[in-house]
Order: sequence, then structure tokens, then C-alpha cells
Amino acid sequence: MAQLRLDISVSLDGFIAGPNRTTEEPLGEGGEQLHDWVFRLASWMEAHGIEGKGATGPDDDLVKEQMAQPGAVLMGRRMFSGGEGGWEDDPMAEGWWGDTPPFGMPVFVLTHHARETLTMKGGTSFVFVTDGVESAFEQARAAAGGKDVAVAGGATIVQQCLRAGLLDELQVHVAPVLLGDGVRLFDGGEQGKLELLRVVDSPTVTHVKYRVVREA
Amino acid sequence: MAQLRLDISVSLDGFIAGPNRTTEEPLGEGGEQLHDWVFRLASWMEAHGIEGKGATGPDDDLVKEQMAQPGAVLMGRRMFSGGEGGWEDDPMAEGWWGDTPPFGMPVFVLTHHARETLTMKGGTSFVFVTDGVESAFEQARAAAGGKDVAVAGGATIVQQCLRAGLLDELQVHVAPVLLGDGVRLFDGGEQGKLELLRVVDSPTVTHVKYRVVREA
Repeated sequence: MAQLRLDISVSLDGFIAGPNRTTEEPLGEGGEQLHDWVFRLASWMEAHGIEGKGATGPDDDLVKEQMAQPGAVLMGRRMFSGGEGGWEDDPMAEGWWGDTPPFGMPVFVLTHHARETLTMKGGTSFVFVTDGVESAFEQARAAAGGKDVAVAGGATIVQQCLRAGLLDELQVHVAPVLLGDGVRLFDGGEQGKLELLRVVDSPTVTHVKYRVVREA
Repeated sequence: MAQLRLDISVSLDGFIAGPNRTTEEPLGEGGEQLHDWVFRLASWMEAHGIEGKGATGPDDDLVKEQMAQPGAVLMGRRMFSGGEGGWEDDPMAEGWWGDTPPFGMPVFVLTHHARETLTMKGGTSFVFVTDGVESAFEQARAAAGGKDVAVAGGATIVQQCLRAGLLDELQVHVAPVLLGDGVRLFDGGEQGKLELLRVVDSPTVTHVKYRVVREA
């Protein structure tokens, strides 16, 4: 059975983006620090079409693993568009992912605004789902061809997946920084037990992977 | 130079206590789960005067290390008294630590209400400090005899120490649970870079230790 997985970078104080997000600075003030560990990695650079010799090692192995698992992606509306406003003000806008997004698979965007599927270069398509998170997950699972589904964020859709009991695994990449303010990963009152699956200890980030324990 | 250190158990969603704390349930609803990993350990049982054979291993080694470092403790008023109200309503109350508290060293309690020092059994004394966190830290450092000072919590005094630039190291013991609500460890807008010092990976808890980076 396909699993729904989350991999997300977070500050020690629980933020996945800093305050004052804009279209120019979609991660908010200080938010880029959460992703410093990933930008230099060979697997990430290759997926994003960046030339040069990236770093290999445990962090890179982990990102390769994370990229190999899913066959489809779930995403919130704001993560698609980047920043406040976004494409709802411009129905032809194609988000902030460029014409060759790094996914290479179907991406299901949960939104209140219906629109036609966008087919991008490199195998990515954006499918817009307006009838809720369960429907988006079911469509993603059907499209994943037996592979897992990755929920890419932001926080709202992650919290919706947790509340709906859809999430199977979550892996946090904890960056050694206190942002002080911004978008909290957990802010919706989600409760539950987790099973600690794995810790990967790296010099600049701590990767901790959990299974969500379903009540019997 | 003596260091100011924090060791604290926290849920994955950042809470050090659950909601609805009372004198009977000072850790709030679900809060005991944060400390499940420590209750069975030999070092903790011995310090708390509990009979029986406790567990040894990496978690126990870590608690022994944590207990050996400080020569004095900093504590917030509410952690001294336990729950809402507490001794401010009863000037003779001796907190919720019993007559032989587990510290065995001077404990400096930051409060707005002056009172005489309480000398307890087993080497613990409670000294009440009313002129701010810097003063409490200076008094604790002077009393620590060259050893470190441990800030025991709660969240308010930890945030005060961070904002005042007093904290040198923090080690979080991340329990695999989402409490959903309660007392957040980081909730005061504290910002800053951390240096990742050490991860101890254990089956039921993840210990991550950081140095607070001081801006030059």
C-alpha cells in the first residue's frame, strides 16, 4: 500500500518559514537558513538543473532516498504559487517553479479555485483539486503507480493530512537555528503518538524520521 | 568560566507541558509522556530515592552527565511551586518537591515575591531572587563553586535567559509525540544561530545538543 510521507526542513523552534513572506522571499525572513544543508548537495543540484560538483555523503544519500520514493506529490496552493496572492489573481500564472519544475511527476495542488491541469517540461504536471485533502490524496495515490505519495507542504496541508489520519511517515530535517517567528509546522492542535524510526546525524542538520501511530 | 546549560524534554511539536496544568497535574494533559524515557533510568531513580533496578545505557549515561555538570540551578517560580497559584497564596508552602528535593545543590528561584531561603534535606536550598534573571544567574554562578549552572525551566525563564544572552548550551530530549497544545519551549520570539554539538540516538527519544552562537 502506498504511503503518504512528509520530508520537511524546520528550525529548532518549529518554523518552516520565517515571518513576512512575500513573492520575492517566499520562505520569509531568515527562512533560507532552513535549507542551507540541502542547496550544496549533488542530488539536489542535479534535480534543480544546477551545474557543478555537489557534495555527496549521508545528507545526499538521504535526499536521493527521499526523491526516489514518491510517484506523486501533494502540495498546498501557496506552495504552488509562492507568496501571498499568487495565481488566483492571475489565472494564467504558472506558479514560481519555472517551466521545468524539479518534481518530474504529477503534483496535486489543493486549492479552492478550479483550473485546468498544467503540463510542464520534465514530466511535471500540476493538477488542481478543489474537493478536499482526502480527494487530493486519493488522486495522487492513483497517479503514483504503486509508489508513495510525498506531501511537499506548506504547513496547512500537512496539518490537514495529520488531522485526516492520512500521513504515514514524517521526517524532519532540524536546522540549528531559532527563527523566532513565522510559519509553524505544527500549529493546528494535531495530537498523536509517533514511533521513532531513524536518526541521521549530520554536522549541520539532524534528520529524524517517525511513523505516525494509528489508534487501534 | 561556568556555563549556563539547559536540558529539557520536549514534544516534536515543541511543547514542554500539555494544556490545562493544575497543581495535581503540573505537566498538563499528556505532559508525562515527555518524560517516559527518563523515569525508568537508574540515575534518575537513584536521584529521586526510588527503589529498584533502573535501566543503564546511553540514556542513563546522558542523565548522569547532565546531573554531574551543575553546581547550582536556576528555576522559574511556577516550576518551584507546581501548578497555578502555588506558594504565593501560602507563604509557608515548600513547593511540590517534598522535603528532600532531587537537586542536592542551591536552587535560585526567580520570582516577584521575596521570601527567606528554604533549606531542605539532602543539600538542596531554595533561594528566592526578585531582581531579575541576570541577578539570579550571577548568584547561581557564585554559588556553583566553579561548576556550571543548569536552568531547569519552565519556558518563561528559559526564554528570559535566551533573550538576555545568558544561555551557553541547550540540549533537547525530543519525545516522539505531538501534544497539540500546552506550553511551548520557544514562544517569545527568540532568534539566533545555534551550533549543533551532538546527537544521541536512542530508541524512544532523540537528544540533540546545541551551543548558542553569540553574535560578534
